[in-house]
Amino acid sequence: SVGLLRANVTHGIREVHVCKDKDSKVGLRVKDINKGIFVVFVQSGSPAAMVGLRFGDQILQLNGENVAGFSTDKIHDIIKKSAVNGIHLVVRDRPFERVITLHKDSVGHVGFTFKNGKINAIVKDSSAARNGLLTEHNFLEINGQNVVGVDDKSVRSLMESGGNVITLTIMPSFIFDHMMKQMATSLVKRLMDHSVPDV
Amino acid sequence: SVGLLRANVTHGIREVHVCKDKDSKVGLRVKDINKGIFVVFVQSGSPAAMVGLRFGDQILQLNGENVAGFSTDKIHDIIKKSAVNGIHLVVRDRPFERVITLHKDSVGHVGFTFKNGKINAIVKDSSAARNGLLTEHNFLEINGQNVVGVDDKSVRSLMESGGNVITLTIMPSFIFDHMMKQMATSLVKRLMDHSVPDV
Repeated sequence: SVGLLRANVTHGIREVHVCKDKDSKVGLRVKDINKGIFVVFVQSGSPAAMVGLRFGDQILQLNGENVAGFSTDKIHDIIKKSAVNGIHLVVRDRPFERVITLHKDSVGHVGFTFKNGKINAIVKDSSAARNGLLTEHNFLEINGQNVVGVDDKSVRSLMESGGNVITLTIMPSFIFDHMMKQMATSLVKRLMDHSVPDV
Repeated sequence: SVGLLRANVTHGIREVHVCKDKDSKVGLRVKDINKGIFVVFVQSGSPAAMVGLRFGDQILQLNGENVAGFSTDKIHDIIKKSAVNGIHLVVRDRPFERVITLHKDSVGHVGFTFKNGKINAIVKDSSAARNGLLTEHNFLEINGQNVVGVDDKSVRSLMESGGNVITLTIMPSFIFDHMMKQMATSLVKRLMDHSVPDV
């Protein structure tokens, strides 16, 4: 399905060039976790969104420097000081994430409950149970579309309209909570890139 | 490389049939985590080892029942009560794990330090840094060979003799520590399956 293609998590490495917009912004925030640098915010319509950066991507290199061990502030500072066309990244595709594919039953359910994007129960003998979906995990994408900061009601209607096969991109909540710490909820809700990715 | 083939983590689903040995043992211990059932011990030379079960595998079905939400004790009890040839498993390949490939530099280093199998520092501009290896992770396999419970000195000599390309199968320590809780260290050190897997 197209959803499955959009949701594919490769853990592979790619290069991207990012420009700044007319306000000298890139639309990207990162966080240092375990000596790595992770994308924790991609602004809707920004240069970062346009080159396909996603929540959870790990930045390995910035302008030729290996960033292992760098702080959040240091990365934001280098980006701020970079030339308008001068940001070159080497990125690993979402290392903390994986994809689970679920099938709707005859009444349209895939078999789990959630609150604020966090899975809190698995329905017995459902598609979620058969496929080993786990609690204490957050889903970040549905059919490849980012839903970080999207309210539960909107997520439910996205799943209802999403066809018979639903792919969830999930991450242990322990790491998700760490990534979201100190991020303003309102910023994420209003401005996070929730566009449907190209295949 | 052969190491890379052996280390491949697919997150895919497979079926296995396990028999009991002459002492009616399977050589397997599990733990319930986040409403899933995970393999946390595979005894060397046991039926579980022979069918290729690995530390970190998630058991989805046992004898036709979906085990989501089952307790550790319930699984051990079902296995105990199963017929000698009557254990049928559906298994997801190590969902909490991923593989990182590192290359040795001119003096044979890949660029990280560790203690008790846990990565605690990344060397600047090393292969580990370039590839985004993270601290607060445990390595479970080296070139596909399980090293859970193996002492650091033996792990070092395994890496030294392991060729120029080293694949590490890693898991966040947060989850690893959870899996190892209540497991006797001596049991793991003495009896865990550390054989070199077939490709």
